[in-house]
Parts: sequence; C-alpha cells; structure tokens
Amino acid sequence: MFLERILAPRHEAHAHCDLFCGVYDPAQAMVEAMSCLKIAEKYHASDDPVFRDRAIFIKEERAELVKHHLMVLWVDFFKPHHLEQFPDLHDLFWRAMKAAGEAKKSMDVEVQQRLVDLVEEVSNVFWQTAESQNAGVYPPS
Amino acid sequence: MFLERILAPRHEAHAHCDLFCGVYDPAQAMVEAMSCLKIAEKYHASDDPVFRDRAIFIKEERAELVKHHLMVLWVDFFKPHHLEQFPDLHDLFWRAMKAAGEAKKSMDVEVQQRLVDLVEEVSNVFWQTAESQNAGVYPPS
Amino acid sequence: MFLERILAPRHEAHAHCDLFCGVYDPAQAMVEAMSCLKIAEKYHASDDPVFRDRAIFIKEERAELVKHHLMVLWVDFFKPHHLEQFPDLHDLFWRAMKAAGEAKKSMDVEVQQRLVDLVEEVSNVFWQTAESQNAGVYPPS
Amino acid sequence: MFLERILAPRHEAHAHCDLFCGVYDPAQAMVEAMSCLKIAEKYHASDDPVFRDRAIFIKEERAELVKHHLMVLWVDFFKPHHLEQFPDLHDLFWRAMKAAGEAKKSMDVEVQQRLVDLVEEVSNVFWQTAESQNAGVYPPS
Amino acid sequence: MFLERILAPRHEAHAHCDLFCGVYDPAQAMVEAMSCLKIAEKYHASDDPVFRDRAIFIKEERAELVKHHLMVLWVDFFKPHHLEQFPDLHDLFWRAMKAAGEAKKSMDVEVQQRLVDLVEEVSNVFWQTAESQNAGVYPPS
Amino acid sequence: MFLERILAPRHEAHAHCDLFCGVYDPAQAMVEAMSCLKIAEKYHASDDPVFRDRAIFIKEERAELVKHHLMVLWVDFFKPHHLEQFPDLHDLFWRAMKAAGEAKKSMDVEVQQRLVDLVEEVSNVFWQTAESQNAGVYPPS
Repeated sequence: MFLERILAPRHEAHAHCDLFCGVYDPAQAMVEAMSCLKIAEKYHASDDPVFRDRAIFIKEERAELVKHHLMVLWVDFFKPHHLEQFPDLHDLFWRAMKAAGEAKKSMDVEVQQRLVDLVEEVSNVFWQTAESQNAGVYPPS
Repeated sequence: MFLERILAPRHEAHAHCDLFCGVYDPAQAMVEAMSCLKIAEKYHASDDPVFRDRAIFIKEERAELVKHHLMVLWVDFFKPHHLEQFPDLHDLFWRAMKAAGEAKKSMDVEVQQRLVDLVEEVSNVFWQTAESQNAGVYPPS
Repeated sequence: MFLERILAPRHEAHAHCDLFCGVYDPAQAMVEAMSCLKIAEKYHASDDPVFRDRAIFIKEERAELVKHHLMVLWVDFFKPHHLEQFPDLHDLFWRAMKAAGEAKKSMDVEVQQRLVDLVEEVSNVFWQTAESQNAGVYPPS
Repeated sequence: MFLERILAPRHEAHAHCDLFCGVYDPAQAMVEAMSCLKIAEKYHASDDPVFRDRAIFIKEERAELVKHHLMVLWVDFFKPHHLEQFPDLHDLFWRAMKAAGEAKKSMDVEVQQRLVDLVEEVSNVFWQTAESQNAGVYPPS
Repeated sequence: MFLERILAPRHEAHAHCDLFCGVYDPAQAMVEAMSCLKIAEKYHASDDPVFRDRAIFIKEERAELVKHHLMVLWVDFFKPHHLEQFPDLHDLFWRAMKAAGEAKKSMDVEVQQRLVDLVEEVSNVFWQTAESQNAGVYPPS
Repeated sequence: MFLERILAPRHEAHAHCDLFCGVYDPAQAMVEAMSCLKIAEKYHASDDPVFRDRAIFIKEERAELVKHHLMVLWVDFFKPHHLEQFPDLHDLFWRAMKAAGEAKKSMDVEVQQRLVDLVEEVSNVFWQTAESQNAGVYPPS
C-alpha cells in the first residue's frame, strides 16, 4: 500500500534524527511549477480578457510558491555535508529560483517548462540524498 | 522517466478540457498531514518547552493548510457527476476536514494518524476519477 | 441596546458548551459576497483600464474570502446532528462554495448575485440552528 | 426579508457614488473582537496547556484582524467631511486600535470587553454617517 | 561601524522600557513607498501588456504594505504624550495612509511621489521623538 | 536632505536599467533581525508566561520575514556577474538564511546576534555592488 512504504522508515528514522527535520518533498514545488506551465498554455488558448488577466496574477502567486518551497528545501533540508555530494547545489537552487522569477514575468510556455525542468533537477538531487528516505513523501517510482 | 509520464497526457488533455481545471493533486494535503503527524511525534520526544510551544503553533498552520488543500479539491476539482461515482464524497471531505480541525486541537499522535488516513482516502478517490489523469502530478505507483 | 442582546446569552452558553465553538457568523461571508457584487457593478460602470484590472484581482480576493468563511462554517460550526435538521447541508455548501469559484471567473453581475443568494441561504440555515444563538453576532432582525 | 433591505438602497446609491466606496461594515471588526472576548473566557475555564497555548496565538490573530478592519474603516470609509460631524473620530480609532494591541497582550476578560466596547463605539459612529446606508450590510435593528 | 551605533543605546534602553516597544523604523514604509514610485515610472516606460498588468497588482501589494507599516507606527509606537509634541500626528497619519490608498488606484507618478513625501514627513516626526533612539534602526545621517 | 540623496541617482538609473530591478534594501531584513534580537532579550527579562509565549511565536514570524527578505536579495537583486566580485555570495546567503532558521528555534540572545551579524555581512556586500546605488534606499552613512 502507498502509505505503508512512506510510514515504514519514518519511525526508525527518529532515533537517528536530532534535528527538527520535518517533512520535505519537492512535490510541493513541482505541483506549483506544473500549475504555472498549465496556466501559460491556457492563457494562449483563450481570448477572454478577464481570463487572461487572472492567468497573469494567479501564475504570479504559483511561481512565488515555487520560490518559497525551493527556499525551504535549500535552507532547511540541505546540510553542509550535502555540498560534497552535490558541489553544484547552490547554483542549481539559484538557477531554479531565478527561473521562478522569470516564470512570473513571462507568459511564454517555454519559460514555464524551463522552471518545471529545474524543479525536476532539484527533485533528482533531493531523492539522491540519504535523508530523503525519511523526509520525503512522494518518492519517484 | 518520472516527468515524462506526467507530461505525456497533459497536452492531449487540453483538447478535451474546456474548463479552468488547473493542476490538482492530493499530494499537497498529504505532505502537510504527514507534517502534522511528525510534529506530534517529535513533541512527545522532546522536553524543551520552546520546542513544544513551537510544535503547537506550527502544527496549527500545517493542519490549516490540509484544510485549505482539501477544500480546493472538494470545491474546484470534483464535479456533480463525481457524486454518482462516489455517493459518499461530501461526507468523506467533511470528515477529513473535521479531522484537520481535530489535528489542531490535539498533540495525540493517533489523532494526526487519523488525518493522514482520511487524506489517503481522499487521495484514493481522487485517483479513481478519470480527470485525475490530467490534473494530478503524483499518481500512486 | 445592540450589544446587550448579543452578549446576554453568551455567558449562559458557556456552561453548556464543551467544545471550542468560538464565534461564528455568516455576516463575514456576506460582507465579502456583497463586495464581489458591488465590484462587478462598478467594473461595468467604468472605462478606466486600471480600475477594471484592479476590480478583477480585488474581486478574486473577496471571493476567496467568501470560500474561506463558508468552509469555516461548514467544517467547524456545523455538527453531524445538524444533518438531520438540514439533509441538504453538504450540497448547499458545495453549491455556495462553487458559486464563489464562479464569482472569481466572471464579471457578470448575475453571477455575483447568485453567490449573494447562496450565502443568504447558508445564513438562513445557520440562524435556524439552536447553536447560532450563542455563536452568532448579527442575528436577522 | 433580510437581504431586501440591504440591497434596496444599493442600486440607487451607485448613481451618486463616484468613488470606489466598496462595502464597509463594522460587523467584520466586531465578529473578531467578540472572538477575542470568548477566547479569553475559555482560556480561564480550561486547564489544558495545549488549549491555553492555542488560545494565546489564535487571539493574537483575531486581534490583528480587528486592527486591520478598523484601519480600513478609518482610512478608506471615513472622509474629511466626517471630521466635522465627529471631531473625536481620530482619537476614537486610535483608542480602539490601541485596545486591539492591548487585547493581544492580555488574557484578561476585561481587556477584551474594552475592545468590544470600543468597536461598538466605532460602529455607532459608522451607522450615523449618511454613507453607511449604502456601504453597510448589517445595520443595527 | 554602522551596527555599533544602533546597538549601543539599545541595552541601556531596556532598563527604562517597561513596554513591549519592539523595533520600529519608518524605513519599512519608505522602502515600499519607493517601490510604488519606481513601479509607476516603469509602467509608463513599458508597452508590454503583461508587464503593465503585473505593475498594477504588484503596486497594489506594495501600497498595502505601506498602509500596514504606517498603521503599526501610529498605533504601536506613538503614545498619547507624543500628541503634545505633534498635535498634527493623527492627521498626518490619516493623510499618509489615504495617500497609500490613492497610490493603489493611480499609475500617476505624481501620486506615488506624494506618498513618498508623506512617508518622509512621518519619518521626520518619528526621528524627532526621544523613543526613536532605541526603537529605530536606520537613523537619518 | 535625506530623500534627495536617494532620489537623485534614481531617474538617471532608469536609462541603464533594462530589468525589473525594483527597489531592494537590506534594511528590510535588518529591521526584522533586530526585532528577533530584542524579542529574545525581553523574553529573558520577563516572567509573564503569556508574554513569553507570545515572544516565541512573534519571533518565529520575524525570523521568517528575515528569510524571505534575504531570499529576495539573493534571487532577485544579485546577478551572475556579482559572483565574480563575491565568490562567497551563495555561501553567505546560505549561512544567513540558516541563521534565521536557528533564530526561530532558540531564545538564546547570542543566536539572534549571530543572525544580525550575518545580515550586516549581507548588507556590506549589497552596498559594495554598483547596482545598490539605484536600488537601495538606506545607504550606510
């Protein structure tokens, strides 16, 4: 069952965890990034000016949430020892968060897709860490 | 690849979708519900009064987010025709959202687990709908 | 005096109230719904593009607040025993909250009026409950 | 009917209203102030430490909302010509908003009652203005 | 050094301070007011409709923050004894906060400049109080 | 005069600025960091349990704002060419934002002071950039 796999290692984990690690999962950033992508697609498919206006400010909020969720992963989940495993970590997050800024400014579908791709890169890095086994909820299948 | 599966049906879907369906995924509610569960566990494992205080108000916010994400699914994703497929839909959401209210009031791990279980029930219902294929990002494996 | 009537039953109520019932009043949802209606009216009366743009995103926020206030009533105020008195309760809230969603999408005054009407239906149900006497602040005159 | 009375003058009003007056009603501040009062009462009636902790930070939010709603009335609804009718207007709002600050700091029921009383004073002033007829939703009965 | 000057009087101050004075600084309102001004300037320099749309709702948020920061200064920092030193205090804040409302409605650079000017007036008054020495972080040079 | 110096280079700057640089100033992060420090100091000076409780969750919000303001500087203000001038830039922001996380967890005055010191380091770097002349509002004197 779905939840079993998630819950199984969690109880064991607490013994080894002296931090407030909480629950972390790039799924949160990805859902919002996918939302940005879909909004841009629908913007171009519509000629209703109210719809298009709403698309602009709703995407702004979604992209801001991507930024926020990425910041939480970068600052709270990742620890100094991860820099050895992923020397590019800071730059990856910088590019991903800057891409969220670009995603706000543009209605271009390609710009949104780039954000989705960078969130996927972050996701790949996250799931390669040992700690993700206990912190993450939606492991890639 | 992970994203391929998600992106594949999306473009096809737009042709059939005349609504602003956006992106919906119970993963958002589940991540927050898991966070409530972990916070309650850590609360009992700690005797630091500042930590325990913070656990109470951080869990309050997380449970509020569960409520919000469930509301979005119930009101925006589910449509009248789903009631035929799931006659219990309203009651399920009512119980799940009331469980989020209980999760705020209590530090009891069992109370948080009940919220996780109800969000999983919602998730199961969501992924049984035809529309989830295009709206969801984290299908169960 | 206005406040006397409100405060009078409150102190008595506490003896019978073992829940955290808080203060609940559909006035909160109604004020926001009325705001949506007025905004749509003014949108059509104006030809200032900045005003019209602002009307769209300010109405979006107001309608979101309607949704939030309705959710609080549905999940926190209403209890299982109310379902016997109002078997249609879940459906009424679903329609009212979906109407708030429609109110976001449309600048049509009729759509906003429908939201106001549904919030009034909710208000009528609320004030027919016994518990509203202690929880509510603005009883219908 | 309840809503009829509210809606009746509204349509007429628009002809005379060249401002963005929106909908204003002290009911919003009052519902939150009443909530602060009830929370303080329940705090003293409970000996559950989690309940008492939650009471403190939930009251903080409610009192902040009182402040916000009062600010909106003071800055957006009231106009320079009202100062002639109510020379004490600024001081009344200052005292009421400072009382909301006091309501945050204290669990004393008297302190919360003082906030309720000052919001009622604001409400009385509001409903004596000519403009309240079109802006307000919950006129005193 | 910059911080030394700020920190120096702070420790001394606590002995004389029996209130929760916190940290107050008109810099917070000014940064947001300057942001409104710049946004209006850039709005007129651009012919990108998405950029112009975003300018409208981003300025709305910035002006709302000006209002909020001014409210905090007026209600929390200033005390009755300041009214003797600044008899115009209430009116100054009323005009400044109303100017923030005007700044939302208009894309006119002059309207934004008026808000900046009024926030500077507030700043001047703030820094003339004795209490600002301990509460403020960015004293005028 | 204070504002003159700030406004002078701004108009000139627009000719050279093809980005949406907005207004950026580390003053925003510093005011919140100073607030965390003062809250911790007052926490230890008080034995009122309600005051102490409020100190914990108010500091939590202030530290979250520090994080947010630092994120905006790192992602929106700083550009790739700044990395040549400040090779340590990413690490500095990581440490400063992690310090904001530590500032949430602890009531220790030293921990808050460390956050203030790191925000000052960020501020020093910011004011060494050429772009700060046009973006910043509170230059060090």
